Order: sequence, then C-alpha cells, then structure tokens
Amino acid sequence: MMVIEYGADIVIVDGGLMFPDDEMLGVDLVIPDTTYLADKLDRIRGVFITHGHEDHIGGLPFLLPQLGFPPVFATKLTLGLITVKLRERRILDRATLVEVAPGTHTQAGAFDVSFVRINHSIPDAVAVVLRTPIGVVIHTGDYKFDFTPVDGLRADIGALARLGDEGVLALCGDSTRVESPGFTPSEQVITATFEEIFSKAPGRIIVATFASLISRVQQVIDVAVRQGRQVALVGRSMVNNVQMAIELGYLNVPVGTLARAEDINKIPANKLVIICTGSQGEPTSALTKIANGDHWLVQIERGDTVILSSTPIVGNERAVFRNIDNLMRQGALLHYQGKAQVHVSGHASREELKLMLALTRPTCVIPVHGEYRMLSQHADLAVSMGVAPNRTVVAQDGDIIELNAEGDIKIVDHAPCGNVYVDGTGVGDVGQVVLRDRRALSSDGVLVVTLTVDAETGEPLARPDIISRGFVYERESEALLEAARARVIQALQKHTKARGGPADWNYVKNKIRDTLSEFIYEQNKRRPMILPVVVEV
Amino acid sequence: MMVIEYGADIVIVDGGLMFPDDEMLGVDLVIPDTTYLADKLDRIRGVFITHGHEDHIGGLPFLLPQLGFPPVFATKLTLGLITVKLRERRILDRATLVEVAPGTHTQAGAFDVSFVRINHSIPDAVAVVLRTPIGVVIHTGDYKFDFTPVDGLRADIGALARLGDEGVLALCGDSTRVESPGFTPSEQVITATFEEIFSKAPGRIIVATFASLISRVQQVIDVAVRQGRQVALVGRSMVNNVQMAIELGYLNVPVGTLARAEDINKIPANKLVIICTGSQGEPTSALTKIANGDHWLVQIERGDTVILSSTPIVGNERAVFRNIDNLMRQGALLHYQGKAQVHVSGHASREELKLMLALTRPTCVIPVHGEYRMLSQHADLAVSMGVAPNRTVVAQDGDIIELNAEGDIKIVDHAPCGNVYVDGTGVGDVGQVVLRDRRALSSDGVLVVTLTVDAETGEPLARPDIISRGFVYERESEALLEAARARVIQALQKHTKARGGPADWNYVKNKIRDTLSEFIYEQNKRRPMILPVVVEV
Repeated sequence: MMVIEYGADIVIVDGGLMFPDDEMLGVDLVIPDTTYLADKLDRIRGVFITHGHEDHIGGLPFLLPQLGFPPVFATKLTLGLITVKLRERRILDRATLVEVAPGTHTQAGAFDVSFVRINHSIPDAVAVVLRTPIGVVIHTGDYKFDFTPVDGLRADIGALARLGDEGVLALCGDSTRVESPGFTPSEQVITATFEEIFSKAPGRIIVATFASLISRVQQVIDVAVRQGRQVALVGRSMVNNVQMAIELGYLNVPVGTLARAEDINKIPANKLVIICTGSQGEPTSALTKIANGDHWLVQIERGDTVILSSTPIVGNERAVFRNIDNLMRQGALLHYQGKAQVHVSGHASREELKLMLALTRPTCVIPVHGEYRMLSQHADLAVSMGVAPNRTVVAQDGDIIELNAEGDIKIVDHAPCGNVYVDGTGVGDVGQVVLRDRRALSSDGVLVVTLTVDAETGEPLARPDIISRGFVYERESEALLEAARARVIQALQKHTKARGGPADWNYVKNKIRDTLSEFIYEQNKRRPMILPVVVEV
Repeated sequence: MMVIEYGADIVIVDGGLMFPDDEMLGVDLVIPDTTYLADKLDRIRGVFITHGHEDHIGGLPFLLPQLGFPPVFATKLTLGLITVKLRERRILDRATLVEVAPGTHTQAGAFDVSFVRINHSIPDAVAVVLRTPIGVVIHTGDYKFDFTPVDGLRADIGALARLGDEGVLALCGDSTRVESPGFTPSEQVITATFEEIFSKAPGRIIVATFASLISRVQQVIDVAVRQGRQVALVGRSMVNNVQMAIELGYLNVPVGTLARAEDINKIPANKLVIICTGSQGEPTSALTKIANGDHWLVQIERGDTVILSSTPIVGNERAVFRNIDNLMRQGALLHYQGKAQVHVSGHASREELKLMLALTRPTCVIPVHGEYRMLSQHADLAVSMGVAPNRTVVAQDGDIIELNAEGDIKIVDHAPCGNVYVDGTGVGDVGQVVLRDRRALSSDGVLVVTLTVDAETGEPLARPDIISRGFVYERESEALLEAARARVIQALQKHTKARGGPADWNYVKNKIRDTLSEFIYEQNKRRPMILPVVVEV
C-alpha cells in the first residue's frame, strides 16, 4: 500500500495483505498499518488498484472501513475480485467502486490519474499514472512485458514511451525479479510444454496453479480441448475465480468443455483434466488434500499426471516438495518447475526493467515490491542507465519520501508501520506480547500448577496439581511431575516457615514459578511456561 | 542410518541426525529409531561412517548408548569430529573408535569392509564397500567427483572400476542432486571468484560458510594470504573445527595468518578476512547476530564485503534472505549464490551419477539420500543405463529390503521407524501428543480458568479466574475475558440447578471447556486451548 500526497490531497495505490511468516504463530493475515492516515481521512481522494492479486487487494476488506470507505478505482476483473471480498465481509454496500479502463483518466483532487495496460500473471493489470502539478509519477504495479500474451493484450509500450516524452518525475517500479538476467519468457512457451505433456499422459491430468492465474487456466483449457479432454475444477477459489472470469468475459470456454466436479470419477481417465489449487503446498488446498489421500473426490491412481504450474514462493519450498513426494509415492507422474518449463514468472527480469526505464526515462526512481536486496539492486540498475544516484531512493516500509519538481528526493521521516495481524476475526489484537507467548508455548509447552492453601496459615491443603500440555506427555512422565510437586511443597514450606505473617501471594507465585522452572531446566534443559494458580481457602 | 544383515551378523552405515522441520515445534534434533535393533545388540559387528557431517555422525552420541557401544570405524578427520561429540556427551571413554584409511579393510563378522576415497564438501569422505559371501554392496555416502579438489585428493575411480570388474551386487548411491543435469563444478572454480571479490573489496571481508567445509576455509585462507590479509575465525563451531583440522593436518595455514578474534577491530579493514558460521541463517549463528547488529565483536560498517559461500537448504531460504537484507541495510556489499559463483555443491549431478553407475556396474541399485522424488529419479536413471527395473528399489525409511546372490531384490517388511525427537536432554519423551499440543498452543494460545466451588453445594465461591497467554493480551481484552467469566458462571449454575446431587467434576470441567470454547469462537473465531481448574472447598 502506497500513500501519495500533494498539498491537501491524498491518493492511495493498492491495499494488499501479506501471509504470515513462521514467526507469526497463529496469525492468519498481515495487513498494513493505517495509523498515519487516521487523522487525514477527509483528504483521501481515492484508492487506485493495479491488479487483483491478494498482495494488492487482500487488505481492502480491513482497510476500507478504517479509511472511511474512500472510492476504489480498478479495472473490470480487478473490481470483480474486490467485489467478492467485500461481499464476503458484508461491507459491499458501504463501498464506492469505480470501474476504469486503460487509457481513461480520473480526477482525484490535485491528481489526474490514468492507467496503462501492462502484462502480469492475472488479466487486466495496469500501471497507475499520477499527473500532479509538479510532474508525472508512475507506479508500475507488478508487471512484465509479454509480446505474445495468452489474451492477446500486450503491455502498452506506446503509452509508456509517450509518458517518457512528456517527462516522468518519478518511477515506482516492481523490483521482484531484478536478480534474474535477461527477459522473462512469454506465457506462450507453456502451451508447448502442456501440449507435449498432455499428449503423453496415459491417464488423468491434474494441473495445480494459482486460482488468479486466469491465463494459465485458459492455456490448460485450450490444450485440453485440442486433445479431446474435458476440464473439471477443484478447489473453492479456483471454482469461484474461473466462474467470475467466464462471466466477465476473461475466459473462453467452448460449450461442453467443463465437467462438474461430481462427475470426475465417471469420465474416462484419458479424457479428463483437473485444474486445482494448491501449487504452493497450502495446507488446506485441494492438491495438498489429494497428495495426502484425503480429498473427498480425487484419489491419485497410478499413471495420473500431475503438473505443478508455478514456482515455490520463498518459505513454501518444504510444503511444495512434500506434496510432490507424496504424489509420486502414490504412483503419479510429476512435472514441476526445474524438470519442465511449466511456469513462467509474472515479473519483469533485468532487461525488462531496463526497457521500462528506457521507455519512461524518469528523473527519480523509487524501487517498489521486493525484499531490500532487490530494491537496492533495482536502484543500482537505474543508476547504470544514467539516473543520478541521489535521485534513487531505497525506502523501507513507513519511510516518508519527499520529492519536488526539480527532482530533489529524500527520505524525510518515518511513519508508524508495524504489521497489523489478523487472527480469526480480530484485527490488531494480537501483538508482540501475544506472539512472544505463543513462541514460548510452542517450543516447550505449558505447566499449570494449582495449589490450594489455608488462608490463615498459608499451609497447603492438598498436594499441588500439575497440568502439562506440550511439555511432556503426562502419563509417561509421572515421576518427573511427582518430583516437581514435591519441589513446590518444599519451596512453599520454606516460605511459610520463614515469614511468620500473612502470605504474600505474588511472592508465592513467583517462588513456585522460579523453583519449578529451575528444577525442570535441571532435569531436562527445557523451559516450559509455568502458570501458578494459588487458591486461598 | 542403514542396517545391513547377513546371517547372524549386522553392520551399520552412518548414524546421522536430522534438523526438525516447522511442524516439530520446540524439538532440537531428530534421530533414527533403533527399535528394530533393540533385541539384536549382540549381533552388531560395527558402525562404519562415510564422512563427518551432522546428518551422518550427529546421531551417534544418542545411538551408541542405545546400541551397547559397538565399535565405530571412520577415517581420521571423521573420527576427530566424532570424538568431540562423544566427549561433549561424556561417553567418550565408553566408546570404541577405530581409525581406518581408504584402501584398508576390516573384518566384521561375515562382512569384509573396505573404504574408497570419494570427494565431498568435507575432507576424508569415503564410500563403504561391504564384501559379503553373496556379493559386494557399495554404500557411496555423500559424494561428487572432483578431479581438481582443493586438497589434491581425488576420488579413487580406479578402485571403483576394479569393484565393477569384480562384480557389484548392489549400489546404494547418493541421490541428492539427481535433478541437476551435467557435472557438479570442481571446488576450484570458487578460488577464482574469491580472488576477484577479494581484490575489489574496499574494506573487511566476511565469508560465511559451513564449519565443516574445510576445503572452503582453505580456499579463503589461500586467497587471503595471496592478497595480504589476515584471517580471523568467528563462531564456536568454526573455531573448533578449524582448530581440529589444523591439528590433524587437514588445513595448511602459514604462520602469522590467523588473527585472534579479540584483535579483529585492531586490524585495518582492508587487511582482514573474517570466516564465520551462519550461512544458512541459523538463528544463534555468528552471521545472524552480525546481521542483527547483535554480535559482541563484529559490527557491519559501510563498505564491508559479505560472502555467503553456500546455497540455502530447503526450508532455510527465508532466514538466509532476511540476513542478506539486514546486512545490505547496514551498507555491506553482498555476494551470494545466484549473484556470483561463491559455492558449489558437494553432491554428484546426473553425469556423475552415471559415471558411478558406469564404474561399478551394479546388478541392483538402491538409491539413498534425498527425498522420494530424487530416489525415484535416481532409480529411473539406473534403468536408463541398463539396470533391470525390478532390480531397483525405491525404499522409504524403515523398509526392509531382501537381496540374494542372484540379484533378486524386494521390500519384504517394514521396521518401526518413527522419528525420535531430542528436546533438551530428553530423548524420545516428546511424541505426537506433545507436538499436537504445542501446535494448538502456538496457534491460539491457552486460557486457564480457575473456579473455586463449594464441595457440598457446588456453588462457586468466587468469580472464576482466567489467565490468558498467547491468546489476547489480557490488559487489552478485559471486556472479552469478563464476558467469558460470566459464561462460565452461567454454565455452572445451570448444571448445579439441574443435577440436585453431588457434582461430577469431570462433567463440570468439560462443560466449562465447551462453553468457553464455543463462546470464544463466536467472539473472534479462535480456538485457544482451554484448561479448566476446579478447586473444591
């Protein structure tokens, strides 16, 4: 999510979400922190969306209410995907959604906003062009240049070149694939791979890919039709996305091609292609269930062909390869990136980044999208093409960049930008303290020690009770827990003898915690969380 | 760890450990399950070790006591590394360690065992050759063929060819890199990269690599000496391994080259190379501490050069890239695999696997080391070179393979082989139940509900107490927890009214758990673990 201000006017580009990493235990989603905007809601003129991927629209259901529902501008398919999300969240009626098209423009306060078609792994992706009184700012969104895209709609390099002629003050450019030399292959190369794999497949074919990768679905459908196979869709998001893409005219499916999922097992194996979700090894996805022999409809049979039409995103490798292994064990023939060209990236490689720079000839470059090392290399690339080093800015989340008409650019401040965690229906109520506790619990478990004591004398009225979860299996560790109980009593007796007055229960609790913690670390070098409960009677 | 039996005699090849994956919360190490051997200890004639990496020797400190300390046979450096481990575990005096050398042989019951030098990313690696009354079985260990290794000691392809002439019944071959075409480059290519990077480095150079990758350390030292830089070692395992390698004669370090770590900040930046651990992003390693600005001795300065001389192992990518980003943010110049050839694999690519098959010409092939998909492709590769398909076996952990002199081979049974988890000093006391609890705790935390009730009437004597950890931060969620308390009281009152007899405390506990669980799921769609504590007074 990027915020751009000129005078009193604010526009926003994209409102995505992030999936939690391994440290963010139990967190479902991560969304941007809008604290900076909280006192500026009346100045927001619009939210402009580059394309319909989760990391660009997924935050909107949470962000729009926080921002007072500013109007959202997006192309047709993108708007369709946003609509589904807002409907699910039951806030569709409160939102203002405006459909735009490449080539059109919109006034948003001091900003004249227009859209340039680019290519990406979802149809209808655009770069957002902001004309301001001091110059033009381009936000590329995610992009590649594909001169032979599946839907025939090429990136509008003419429009980009005209912007370059007009003069571009700043380019905010996708940096994800700056580490890849050359030019990302056209989506078209995959059709040839599919043709070959399909023609040799003895049984069913299962293609797993992203539900939003509509062009890939189109390719599968095209090849299936040519080879006389029907196509079935499996996985909720795949079914929903394909249905919407058909309705909005983004998918071309000959009548009789689609089979109902329920009919999968009635169609001869060599006449069927299944398209499903799960190419990233997502735990609840169709492919993961199939790989685990746990899908209600699809069971792998020897001779089934499975194609993983994607590349594992960093962090998902183990899950993806676990699925591949499980599918092979059941006798499936596997095709995945590295073994066959079954996927191409949706992002621009170095030569495309150079092409974008050459077309737009920006005064300033602000690399966006990608880890720090990628932003940094993208800035270096711009410098290698003649951009002045002090006119590139490698910014981090929250940095506030100031830019004037002369192209003076610098980071002037930093806005609050901690991640906001979504857990269940809670937004922002899981913070660092809760995560720290979850990490502690996850690594050594918890011991609850309950002690009933006489309020007058402070003497225990019964042996302490210890409940253990995630520490050791209680039944197998009676001796250890029994010794732990003895320690608690001992610690308490010392305390009662020493004090000769009314007990200090906080002190007692701390004493129990410290004593037990020390005892258990001695015994087996672990540090479970210890929760003492003292009940006074 | 592989067990090979002939008649009454058992030999074991390797005894490694595995590092836990993300599902194995809080587990430190994973070791093999030796249940199958428990009643056969008197038949074990020896443990033969291929090389000194953790996944081949790391389990020995736990396994040897379980196995009654059978003699361990290994080459000099490998034995040195094992010695350190057994000493740390205080069982060195109980172990029988036998040093062997390539070309020597040992009788172990019916097995005549000899060793063939191969190349790998640690010196002194060997293949183990088992001559049995029915034929020769070769276990390659991890290997590659390097015709220009850093230490000058080439794999003994002559010995392998002679074994082929003699006749090999079965080859158990490393499969890790079967998916890589061609021939893995020689370690030597890295020297050229180092020469170039070092010569251009304006300040300090920090090289992170595996502590066991002695040849890489030698390369760094060689280039440093040529370019007039001193070398300092940082990270406990790096210091220990290098020291041992020097003592045993596996590292050649000119006098005056090594600097003491404490002197790091006294040496001019352009006269220093630091070699450290942490190339895999290990959380407690030197490089991770340096990247986080948290190392006691080394702070990154603008212009420092950092080389990650390794490739991220699957599952470590995020941690590795996080370090790279953090180092770049502090102004370091980064070189890592993909940007520069700063690492080569220690494993054989496809053409080397073919070379091994061509040299040894085995009747049967049992692919080892690697995920299922790799084993399976290695078997296919053997078949493509003329091995009969029914003479390859793709086995999974625990499978028992039977093999006769005619080369009839099949999986006949399955031994117990669950992973044994090491957590702290506990071996095997963390099982599936404990891990399941840790997963539950990690995702939504825990609520402890304490209720004091009158033993006679079953009436609550005080408001229930709720302790929350890892669920919501207590101070910020008073209202929710207050409502939860009310629910507990309500559920209990219903129960006491309804029964009219003595309370069934198990029923009450379940009631509290179910009521609260439902209430909280309603409120925020989470499922914390709920631990009810009912104290009867």
